[in-house]
Amino acid sequence: MIKACVFDLDNTLLDFMRMKREAVEMAVEAMIDAGLKIEKEKAIEKIFRLYEQTHIEDQHIFDRFLEVETGKVDYKILAAGIVAYRKAKTANMMLYPHVRFVLTELLRMGLKLGVISDAPRLQAWTRLAEVGLHTLFDAVITWDDTGVRKPNPEPFIAVLEKLNAKPEESIMVGDWAERDIYGAKELGMITVFARYGDTFGTQNSGADYEINDPLELIDIVKSLNKNV
Amino acid sequence: MIKACVFDLDNTLLDFMRMKREAVEMAVEAMIDAGLKIEKEKAIEKIFRLYEQTHIEDQHIFDRFLEVETGKVDYKILAAGIVAYRKAKTANMMLYPHVRFVLTELLRMGLKLGVISDAPRLQAWTRLAEVGLHTLFDAVITWDDTGVRKPNPEPFIAVLEKLNAKPEESIMVGDWAERDIYGAKELGMITVFARYGDTFGTQNSGADYEINDPLELIDIVKSLNKNV
Repeated sequence: MIKACVFDLDNTLLDFMRMKREAVEMAVEAMIDAGLKIEKEKAIEKIFRLYEQTHIEDQHIFDRFLEVETGKVDYKILAAGIVAYRKAKTANMMLYPHVRFVLTELLRMGLKLGVISDAPRLQAWTRLAEVGLHTLFDAVITWDDTGVRKPNPEPFIAVLEKLNAKPEESIMVGDWAERDIYGAKELGMITVFARYGDTFGTQNSGADYEINDPLELIDIVKSLNKNV
Repeated sequence: MIKACVFDLDNTLLDFMRMKREAVEMAVEAMIDAGLKIEKEKAIEKIFRLYEQTHIEDQHIFDRFLEVETGKVDYKILAAGIVAYRKAKTANMMLYPHVRFVLTELLRMGLKLGVISDAPRLQAWTRLAEVGLHTLFDAVITWDDTGVRKPNPEPFIAVLEKLNAKPEESIMVGDWAERDIYGAKELGMITVFARYGDTFGTQNSGADYEINDPLELIDIVKSLNKNV
């Protein structure tokens, strides 16, 4: 009997990379408009390479980019970039198609809902609030809550405890095979690979199920619960 | 001969308090919607009292408010507040009527334009970028640039140096008599009190001129320059 469904956040519920790409592009255009001398595509590429050097949540990426690129931080250019980034981020913070419908449908079916995210707590929660999902989940476990990332067992154990569900009664849905799927499987959860959010070109996810659309989740739950 | 015009930012160019009021109200409503048990008007009042205890730029005001009010920080509620605050801030970041017209008119008249703000550098610049004024000024001096606030002479001296203008060739426009007007007058600048932005109920500004509308600035400059 499936009692709980746990989701990764970025690239599973939220189309995170699309948001990131749009926001960085708008930021670069605004910085060029404010006086930065650089070719647009080159700047975008450099910024994403800087993200790889630290992490995708780096809150000082444009400071670092300007420092590397121009040897100093011109605040006129920095501010133009930040403001454009924020506006584009808000405008492009979107759920994948059907996510909202599926989540409310799972609630109607009596399931408890959880999130495990490796993002920092404030970022994870503000993203949920931005798309209006923050009141929907019974448990949200972020990086700050356990201090370790998936596939470590701690965040999976923490979310299941809060949802009051055993691993075998729970589904984990995620786009990152090595983290989401591997970690959940080790613990005995049922695993669903969100292929629609795959940015790695994953060949073999190792998951029990693979979905190309969040809608498919409803049938998976129904079939798992049909003989109960 | 007037060669330069220097403006305070908040409550002189930007209707800052209006933005702040709207943003805090939206944040409180969102926090109540996310589960916070408090009466709306009481919460708004408490938050503004907390701002007075630190400063109006406090970036952790809602954390502190929740801590004081509930003894802990519920990130669901915090995130709801922050997201609503940001959206309302962007929507309500507005110039006073005629400000944009007056600034471009002064540029056409050949004046150099400056800003002196006691706000932190990043906040001052992002506000300018948010209203699309960041490319208009020849000099922007923020708190971080001199490390002291008005009415200390340092920020006034710094902006005049960058504008390459003598005090007697320059106008200072501000809403805060003790800071903007006093500091500029001490240095020998011509002073204009922005009465439309006054939030203190100032009786005697001590300024050379007082204006109820930014438009009046154009005639002041014209009359000062007519015999040159």
